[in-house]
Amino acid sequence: MTDIVDWVAVDWGTSNLRAWGIAADGSVVFEKVSPSGMGKLAREDYPGVLTGLLEDVQTAHGGPIQVLICGMAGARQGWLEAPYLEAPTDLRSLLAGAVQPMADNRIIASILPGVCQKAGGDNVMRGEETQLLGLAALHPGFSGIVCMPGTHSKWAKLSGSRIEHFSTAMTGEVFEVLRTHSVLRHSFNGDIDGPGRADGFAAGAAAGLDHPEQLLGTLFQVRAGSLLSGRQPDWCAGYLSGLLIGTEVGANRHLIGAQDVPLIGSPTLCALYAQVLTLAGASGTPQDATAIVLAGLKAARNFTNELEPRR
Amino acid sequence: MTDIVDWVAVDWGTSNLRAWGIAADGSVVFEKVSPSGMGKLAREDYPGVLTGLLEDVQTAHGGPIQVLICGMAGARQGWLEAPYLEAPTDLRSLLAGAVQPMADNRIIASILPGVCQKAGGDNVMRGEETQLLGLAALHPGFSGIVCMPGTHSKWAKLSGSRIEHFSTAMTGEVFEVLRTHSVLRHSFNGDIDGPGRADGFAAGAAAGLDHPEQLLGTLFQVRAGSLLSGRQPDWCAGYLSGLLIGTEVGANRHLIGAQDVPLIGSPTLCALYAQVLTLAGASGTPQDATAIVLAGLKAARNFTNELEPRR
Repeated sequence: MTDIVDWVAVDWGTSNLRAWGIAADGSVVFEKVSPSGMGKLAREDYPGVLTGLLEDVQTAHGGPIQVLICGMAGARQGWLEAPYLEAPTDLRSLLAGAVQPMADNRIIASILPGVCQKAGGDNVMRGEETQLLGLAALHPGFSGIVCMPGTHSKWAKLSGSRIEHFSTAMTGEVFEVLRTHSVLRHSFNGDIDGPGRADGFAAGAAAGLDHPEQLLGTLFQVRAGSLLSGRQPDWCAGYLSGLLIGTEVGANRHLIGAQDVPLIGSPTLCALYAQVLTLAGASGTPQDATAIVLAGLKAARNFTNELEPRR
Repeated sequence: MTDIVDWVAVDWGTSNLRAWGIAADGSVVFEKVSPSGMGKLAREDYPGVLTGLLEDVQTAHGGPIQVLICGMAGARQGWLEAPYLEAPTDLRSLLAGAVQPMADNRIIASILPGVCQKAGGDNVMRGEETQLLGLAALHPGFSGIVCMPGTHSKWAKLSGSRIEHFSTAMTGEVFEVLRTHSVLRHSFNGDIDGPGRADGFAAGAAAGLDHPEQLLGTLFQVRAGSLLSGRQPDWCAGYLSGLLIGTEVGANRHLIGAQDVPLIGSPTLCALYAQVLTLAGASGTPQDATAIVLAGLKAARNFTNELEPRR
């Protein structure tokens, strides 16, 4: 019977967490979402959040529920720090690096490690490694560049379940801090989602792709454009967004071959990245991010039947 | 007698204003500084600020004092908007574009225009045009690239008193918003002016110069460096500063020839830019910014003996 939970998969990010009850046959029995992301929690809050979320969950075997967690809960400022695996590495070894922040008669929780990189530039990821393993599980034999748009976008070179190299672009966060705190904010007073946004986006993306090295200069043209050319808030917001994504894609252009680039992230953002990749003469395809992270957590768990206690 | 004021030169910026009493022979009779910058004033505050500042000033001829102003007082959100001259243009025509926000029996004030650019990318400057005219006056025959580091750095191509083209890099402001509002702020908790700052600056400058197109990615290495390599706050602050200035100089590298680049701005900032220009195989020389702006205001005024009323 598939409505009995065998274990629970959790994606515990900065802003929220999502939990899925998984039956013995791998089907999803329930999905729960909570706003209790890492950014809102103190270390001592985590057990209560997880216990509350899973209060009504019954297991098939009557024993404690095994909970496998990926994401920022394993960060230094999270629940319990899960040390990084160092790239290049095979992501099938994720579970071997897990830590166990909680084991009582109700819940046995494990947090998967992130991945770090020291050769070729310090870098870290936490949560994306599980998505990459999920992509590898859903597309066996895939080898190439994967783009994961977001606050801190990741670009990873994947060969099967092996992560060869990755980088992080602060694109989403730079957009937010400039939109909110810089002189450019004066250009966004009004309706930023109007019909001019698409034109602004296309103009910004072209500028970023053509001259990624000029970002500090082209940014100011948002402001100059509203002062001199009467650019409206929707155009300016589109231009800033397009300029930053265009710059990010332009900077990674040498990594992208003829192969389609899988895009893992929010549907809205992935659609914008796909548009810019097309402008760059490449192509990208948005993936189902929920299916990907679930596949990653399942794949991580499948390399052993028992979560070994580890503290 | 040189202690009698003939006219008053004012540099009215965003954060403060400076005023100099000029005698008939061009010598400086007094200097006054006030924190009443454009950013702190409503339109109706300006006459009172200026009247208060010049209350005890006597003129040689007993009539109203002529006050010539450059800078942000002429912005749309300032005292009275002084329309832009459009580049390329001869800066000797600045006074012809001045506006007059105030004329009573004590003070006749004029504000110099800024310079805008539409061909080759929308751009604006306000205040820097007067410094460029000052540089041209102090170095007759100079032709080349001038760099003006700051919140919004300007790079201008000057031929004598003619400005051919210019650009703006948001370097200083991007440093501030990232330092204050982004995830990078966690890397700056502590003494950011310690002995590691110089090493961090050199490493960041090299990264920026080598790969100005990678800025969105190298920015994140500030954070990854403190997580993975134990980089201290002073090193991280130096790295971010060097990375941004290196990126700015790297993006403008194609404009810089064998000729020394005059640097106009705060002494601390100009010294950093000079260091990065040297790393780039070029050279830059900090100028006396006060002498430059004074020379610019004098030169702007010298093209007529009388400030024509204009509203």
